[in-house]
Amino acid sequence: MENKPTLHTSLSPTLLHLYDVSNSIVVIIDVLRATSTITTALYNGARSVIPVDSVARCIEIGRQIEGVTAGERDGKIAEGLEYGNSPFEYPREFIEGKTLVLTTTNGTRLLHMALDKGAKEIITGSFPNLSAVCDHLVGIKQNVILGCAAWKDRVNMEDMLFAGAVISRIREHFSINCDSSHMAETMYEKGKKDLFGFLKKNEASHYHRLMGFGLEKDIRYCLASDGANVLPIYKEGKLVVK
Amino acid sequence: MENKPTLHTSLSPTLLHLYDVSNSIVVIIDVLRATSTITTALYNGARSVIPVDSVARCIEIGRQIEGVTAGERDGKIAEGLEYGNSPFEYPREFIEGKTLVLTTTNGTRLLHMALDKGAKEIITGSFPNLSAVCDHLVGIKQNVILGCAAWKDRVNMEDMLFAGAVISRIREHFSINCDSSHMAETMYEKGKKDLFGFLKKNEASHYHRLMGFGLEKDIRYCLASDGANVLPIYKEGKLVVK
Repeated sequence: MENKPTLHTSLSPTLLHLYDVSNSIVVIIDVLRATSTITTALYNGARSVIPVDSVARCIEIGRQIEGVTAGERDGKIAEGLEYGNSPFEYPREFIEGKTLVLTTTNGTRLLHMALDKGAKEIITGSFPNLSAVCDHLVGIKQNVILGCAAWKDRVNMEDMLFAGAVISRIREHFSINCDSSHMAETMYEKGKKDLFGFLKKNEASHYHRLMGFGLEKDIRYCLASDGANVLPIYKEGKLVVK
Repeated sequence: MENKPTLHTSLSPTLLHLYDVSNSIVVIIDVLRATSTITTALYNGARSVIPVDSVARCIEIGRQIEGVTAGERDGKIAEGLEYGNSPFEYPREFIEGKTLVLTTTNGTRLLHMALDKGAKEIITGSFPNLSAVCDHLVGIKQNVILGCAAWKDRVNMEDMLFAGAVISRIREHFSINCDSSHMAETMYEKGKKDLFGFLKKNEASHYHRLMGFGLEKDIRYCLASDGANVLPIYKEGKLVVK
């Protein structure tokens, strides 16, 4: 067999330690909605997005740098922050040239775990930047871990589907000995014609949570490919466009 | 909504703590091959199966009770033990009336985790006793955790498929707010016509490992429903037929 780099999928932050993080590029995946919002803000001209793991720290950094503080807990705007976790809150006319300080329930937490474990490189992935992620991973020829942010460590459907979407596009470039990856690809192939309908049919828990908040528009945006096709990469405490 | 008991699927021992183990019946699932072998030995008349978590303890208990010591590490018979983890090693003419002391890589370990967390009841599930498991869970009307033993904590395909098989049969009796469960059911529905071919097509890692050891016959047996349809239940340190 040729010597291709490896690709693994970690379906929950709790599983991340099972993989060789320090020898891999880690893709942080939090489809609904952190990583979709991050790529959207950067696509629309944000200077950077600073992911932080607590509301207190979000407020503190926001003050220091005069940034826009944003984030959610349990799918709603966290108390003390200015904005939420919806990509529609960050159009170009608002976010261009600004720094977004963002804390979310699951996505930013996973990012800090990957950082602590010494990941070679950290990028964020979501359907709005699917192509940028795939192009980068194929080009850089390094081992990859697709890290699903999940929901309070419980595996979720939409992050797995995004992992599957990446795998279905780039599988030939990697050696994949990972059942989670093959399951993700199979699920994606089954659902890809109508991801929104697939989440509904499969009773995806976070789909229902956000629908309950009236966020169908957010969900549909977060499931569409390449609407904000840039590559957020983590450098010196910030996510910036590579 | 009616007040149905809940059902969750834990895709790896590492995820078990996320669920309310002490308020649930835990089904230990290690399709290839521990729980298939356990139900087969009991079906063929074994008095009991004592699951232990180390080879040393297996040998020690085997001596004390004059039991048959068996088990594997990494898919092969562990050094110092008499027998392996193949259901075909335990026909009636050999195992009837005997006690099997069994240690395996993943299945017995998960069982001890469920025990430590105070599970209400522990049973084992596998395709050879699919109907017995489903009938019991429907009848007893308690919360259920389908606990996949996985492979060294990495999620695997075949245990998820068994969880999906159970869910596809009993879903109407439970309240299921669990993406892992819905994914498992969807995967099972996709693969059920030919589970062997589905594992092959999806490049399931343990399928390949066992095929490499020449164990196709074992795999086919372990994927067929109701070949040894009894219900192993854990009582006072032993798995016995309920």
